[in-house]
Amino acid sequence: MSAPGIGLIGTGFMGKCHALAYGAVRAVFGDVPTPRLELLCDTPSDKASAMAGQFGFARATVDWRALVSDPAVDIVCITTPNKLHAEMAIAALEAGKHVHCEKPMALTLDEARAMTEAAKKSGRRTMVGYNYIRNPAYQHARRLIGEGAIGRLIHFRGFVDEDYQADPDLPWTWRATKAEAGLGALGDMGCHMLSMAIGLMGPISSVIGDIRTVHETRPSPEGGERRPVENDDIASAILTFAGGQQGLFSTSRSAWGRKNSMIFEVHGTKGMIRFDQERMNELHLFQNSGPSAEQGFRTILTGPAHPPYGNFTPAPGHQLGFNDLKTIEAAEFLRAIAAGTEAWPSFRDALAIEEVIHAIAASQGRRIDL
Amino acid sequence: MSAPGIGLIGTGFMGKCHALAYGAVRAVFGDVPTPRLELLCDTPSDKASAMAGQFGFARATVDWRALVSDPAVDIVCITTPNKLHAEMAIAALEAGKHVHCEKPMALTLDEARAMTEAAKKSGRRTMVGYNYIRNPAYQHARRLIGEGAIGRLIHFRGFVDEDYQADPDLPWTWRATKAEAGLGALGDMGCHMLSMAIGLMGPISSVIGDIRTVHETRPSPEGGERRPVENDDIASAILTFAGGQQGLFSTSRSAWGRKNSMIFEVHGTKGMIRFDQERMNELHLFQNSGPSAEQGFRTILTGPAHPPYGNFTPAPGHQLGFNDLKTIEAAEFLRAIAAGTEAWPSFRDALAIEEVIHAIAASQGRRIDL
Amino acid sequence: MSAPGIGLIGTGFMGKCHALAYGAVRAVFGDVPTPRLELLCDTPSDKASAMAGQFGFARATVDWRALVSDPAVDIVCITTPNKLHAEMAIAALEAGKHVHCEKPMALTLDEARAMTEAAKKSGRRTMVGYNYIRNPAYQHARRLIGEGAIGRLIHFRGFVDEDYQADPDLPWTWRATKAEAGLGALGDMGCHMLSMAIGLMGPISSVIGDIRTVHETRPSPEGGERRPVENDDIASAILTFAGGQQGLFSTSRSAWGRKNSMIFEVHGTKGMIRFDQERMNELHLFQNSGPSAEQGFRTILTGPAHPPYGNFTPAPGHQLGFNDLKTIEAAEFLRAIAAGTEAWPSFRDALAIEEVIHAIAASQGRRIDL
Amino acid sequence: MSAPGIGLIGTGFMGKCHALAYGAVRAVFGDVPTPRLELLCDTPSDKASAMAGQFGFARATVDWRALVSDPAVDIVCITTPNKLHAEMAIAALEAGKHVHCEKPMALTLDEARAMTEAAKKSGRRTMVGYNYIRNPAYQHARRLIGEGAIGRLIHFRGFVDEDYQADPDLPWTWRATKAEAGLGALGDMGCHMLSMAIGLMGPISSVIGDIRTVHETRPSPEGGERRPVENDDIASAILTFAGGQQGLFSTSRSAWGRKNSMIFEVHGTKGMIRFDQERMNELHLFQNSGPSAEQGFRTILTGPAHPPYGNFTPAPGHQLGFNDLKTIEAAEFLRAIAAGTEAWPSFRDALAIEEVIHAIAASQGRRIDL
Repeated sequence: MSAPGIGLIGTGFMGKCHALAYGAVRAVFGDVPTPRLELLCDTPSDKASAMAGQFGFARATVDWRALVSDPAVDIVCITTPNKLHAEMAIAALEAGKHVHCEKPMALTLDEARAMTEAAKKSGRRTMVGYNYIRNPAYQHARRLIGEGAIGRLIHFRGFVDEDYQADPDLPWTWRATKAEAGLGALGDMGCHMLSMAIGLMGPISSVIGDIRTVHETRPSPEGGERRPVENDDIASAILTFAGGQQGLFSTSRSAWGRKNSMIFEVHGTKGMIRFDQERMNELHLFQNSGPSAEQGFRTILTGPAHPPYGNFTPAPGHQLGFNDLKTIEAAEFLRAIAAGTEAWPSFRDALAIEEVIHAIAASQGRRIDL
Repeated sequence: MSAPGIGLIGTGFMGKCHALAYGAVRAVFGDVPTPRLELLCDTPSDKASAMAGQFGFARATVDWRALVSDPAVDIVCITTPNKLHAEMAIAALEAGKHVHCEKPMALTLDEARAMTEAAKKSGRRTMVGYNYIRNPAYQHARRLIGEGAIGRLIHFRGFVDEDYQADPDLPWTWRATKAEAGLGALGDMGCHMLSMAIGLMGPISSVIGDIRTVHETRPSPEGGERRPVENDDIASAILTFAGGQQGLFSTSRSAWGRKNSMIFEVHGTKGMIRFDQERMNELHLFQNSGPSAEQGFRTILTGPAHPPYGNFTPAPGHQLGFNDLKTIEAAEFLRAIAAGTEAWPSFRDALAIEEVIHAIAASQGRRIDL
Repeated sequence: MSAPGIGLIGTGFMGKCHALAYGAVRAVFGDVPTPRLELLCDTPSDKASAMAGQFGFARATVDWRALVSDPAVDIVCITTPNKLHAEMAIAALEAGKHVHCEKPMALTLDEARAMTEAAKKSGRRTMVGYNYIRNPAYQHARRLIGEGAIGRLIHFRGFVDEDYQADPDLPWTWRATKAEAGLGALGDMGCHMLSMAIGLMGPISSVIGDIRTVHETRPSPEGGERRPVENDDIASAILTFAGGQQGLFSTSRSAWGRKNSMIFEVHGTKGMIRFDQERMNELHLFQNSGPSAEQGFRTILTGPAHPPYGNFTPAPGHQLGFNDLKTIEAAEFLRAIAAGTEAWPSFRDALAIEEVIHAIAASQGRRIDL
Repeated sequence: MSAPGIGLIGTGFMGKCHALAYGAVRAVFGDVPTPRLELLCDTPSDKASAMAGQFGFARATVDWRALVSDPAVDIVCITTPNKLHAEMAIAALEAGKHVHCEKPMALTLDEARAMTEAAKKSGRRTMVGYNYIRNPAYQHARRLIGEGAIGRLIHFRGFVDEDYQADPDLPWTWRATKAEAGLGALGDMGCHMLSMAIGLMGPISSVIGDIRTVHETRPSPEGGERRPVENDDIASAILTFAGGQQGLFSTSRSAWGRKNSMIFEVHGTKGMIRFDQERMNELHLFQNSGPSAEQGFRTILTGPAHPPYGNFTPAPGHQLGFNDLKTIEAAEFLRAIAAGTEAWPSFRDALAIEEVIHAIAASQGRRIDL
């Protein structure tokens, strides 16, 4: 498939991000096929056409079923509200398309399992949009761990916080409902940190979770009585990894001042690695080596020594941005499709993340084995 | 008591810290009684004499029982190994002395309870050396919370980490034993963070704890077989405060690169406060006020606007140090004694901290109510 | 001109950056014309064709003169070595093209003046690639200053440092020659900071400069005798702005550990603004307002409140990258062309920067009025 | 002199600092003589007595001439307003006392020269209170440079800023006069940075200075007409060190948000060292060694590996404070007196600093050789 056709459903936050990524991926990475921006789906019709024009797609439609069965479409990108992921992904897979789906995978574990099953049956490639694991800084952390740079791993901490639901006076939205949004902070942001945790530490074998809704009701947008918030504002857990290590995890969507805070620490017997997404071009490394008077955390600025940074710019410290991570993700997906190998994280990999967040949500302070 | 006589037991890390504090407290704070550095206890005899000379104590002894009953001694400072705290403190109280005891209060809950009982019976003042809560930055955090600067409190995180037991090849010491050290990281450092947490959030009503010994044996210092480590290297917990809020807590003595890392975050409905002891002269405050384009975490450098900083130097941003915190603590104790009011944290207050750390140690992943 | 044709000369570091920018600009900004990637020039021929394929250009050529006179080309982007800028830009202007030229504008003041003259004669739009001034954080700094957020301006400091010439053993290259590179750190990086300084403080009226070549010779790449370094490794200056304020400026290409450090401080009578390009999504603001106990530098994370950040992603704190700045620059140039107004910084504006850096280079410690 | 008698003139900001330092120095450093706090001078009489009581001095006086000639006084500490330094120091030296004088040494170069001459004639020890050079972090920077850790030195930058004169509405004080204060920011803070610069880089051979009074008048404290500010609010200079390196220097007393900002960078051919007094327990070191993917600035937290930190506390990262630096200074002075060797910086050393700041003040943009 020398020029795979892209069908994109959704033109919002992540829809634009996908459009930019598939638009730039071939210019950034000379070694991937050139995607054709074939078909864009949104509603109403004039919006679909306008956004197709803006994003550089050849055609527009308001019918996602037409998109997933369009013969010129090879890859379906799903960036719609979470409750639509399962139906769209399964239909696309059944139509023989590869599927690039935004996180969280689905609203419920049942949906996620059905998607995984459909992927298996289809023989097509799937990928879930855990874009933060594409960061060269994160990839370098993985490489360092693999090389033993911090010794045997003994502990993990990961926190992911934003403040978009911090204001108690913010009106009620669909985000507050189980039916539309599923889990709260856990599903929206927590899953990102778990993708990072598993990539660094390996699978999670048990969780003890505790979730809280700190703003129990919110003003109705139509006026009248306040409406209930049905899902978690804050979720925390003590994890145990398959390797036996303890992990600590917390996520909040009500953490004032945090805009995209995703902090992790990996503790090892020879050193520590620390990262914060709000300074996404830095990796912090402590190693117990050299004279003790000169030891300290090193702030490593990413550069060409941290692939694939150099594909964006040859100059170190010049900084990648959020949208660049999706471009790397698109390249990985195109490569997996070209090679006929499973992409990471596939639906199967993402299902494991869903199992963790749903276990945390259900735990109520008891240990749940996975 | 215009010039209370100080009897200090121990001349090590915290012994020196107490000596410096009581030596400086009157010069720093014009409004406290001038302590007399009366009697110093250590062994052997020549060491006791030498340290008395260095620290400016009038007399020296090798007999702590003589010290606690010495008529010229009004305040007994206990900075000996933890297993000796209970016996010494109780004897001092029974001899009618006020007691300034280093943390952790005792090895076991039984000891801590006996100490609290003895304090109550004696009618004397007690204080446990939770020096970090004396930091003007911490006190300012308390003041801000009290004034509602960050609204209703909704979440807490606190982490305290050092690396003094991070090296797997470090020889076995008494620190590894329950009999000599009691709890591990929990008792040595975790209790500090809990003193800070309770001071900010109020009492803790339940914990779910999980502790780990990551270096299960250590080389025997005498050679031969490796010896077992009996207490926690890492301890984590999900807390619930009496006010209903969730808290997250973790402590490690095996966290490479952390020297005195004591990080807390208090999340409120109107803002967040963040602090790190490794930058102890800074407080980080986010408030949801003013134009959103100008919002951000403010790095507040402590100064005379944050009492009692100004007693040390009138110039802001000039920095207090670790030993200065003990001087503030000494002033607080002297004032409580002069006023005949209970000091904070008294043995009774510190017992509540002991109850939390022992509950975390015993929890094994189950919720324990306090 | 609904779909202006882009002719790009050069496919290296900045050539790729231009290709990505003009490829993405319409998807990012719905309100600009959609550029046609028309013609790409590089040598040899197969490289030109390959890069045209990768970057999405319709045609390729090895002849830049053909490119600048191609009727399908409306905008010529010049990203070649600095010594070629003048000839190419003037030819393009004479052929009636708009010119988007990388910095520094030219090797010599004479060249820069000739380019400015050609631009004036042509009536076409010109822009020099001072991309860092496109940063929403920088634009917010300008807005704050304009609104009086930090009062009357009293002082400026600006430093720009990298380490690509820090290693004394690095072989000699064309960068070391006046004939090929012109000025050293001043021409390569210093000019960026001066574009920022002038944008914040206004024109510069005099300089006292002092330049140093700290690695006076370098190993010849062909072996044999070491070869001389003819231009500045480090350049510093005391500036006076037209408004009377003092400024301090320094740049080094031999500053170990600095990868893209561009730090500025603007001191005002009511506050201070600080910025560092190595953390390009943050702006630091101190204002003398509110209770003194809560004053401090605020770390503002850029977001949709800082246009045009929101065109890239609606979520604050998610981070723009280096290449995104060029996309903003391309949008500005397309808008200026569409509107028929002068772009900023045009050749005329950039000439003022050239005059400053050449005055610094020539000063030898004496004040030079501009 | 087993117990040198201390005579302290002044009980303000630095007077208290000296009292605390000489009160603690023997307890902190076991290997120095125990100072006797003998005589304290201030006015009026009741204040002198009260402060003697608070600071632990045996006697009080209102007559500094009595103090400098008191037979029980061996060391005279001068912490009075700068205009009194010369007369007091010379009288003390003539009375055969050692003199520990606060910075800046004097108001004028003539005074500083007379003091140096008096010191030479007396054969007594002198020291000027450049306390920041006592910081273990600074001392470690010196050690690293001496060991070649950053190679040959090629460049220096040093900035020292506060905001105590930033508010334009602040009333006029004696600080604004040449007769009472001498130089402005240069004399009050700039000299500190020059003490640090010379200690790291060696002597300064020429300066090009530029000074500014940005608040030219201030409200009269008695009301009525505004009064003129006669000295520098901001002073900047390009330095040349005797070793040939360029240095950049700036100081402001009107820099909003800066409380005790003293930042220096030493650039070498193999690395860079960076320090900021507002985070005085950290030293930042970049070395060009090891894999490039792991290079970065290391944040070294001071600890026992950085003498004499360990004399204060055996635990790394526990932080020294501002007053601790004066204690180290007192120990150095006591040791020099005991050993009969010259202390650093003596009056002679400090005279060199005065020559630099007065040259900067006089330069008006011309190079002045020293």
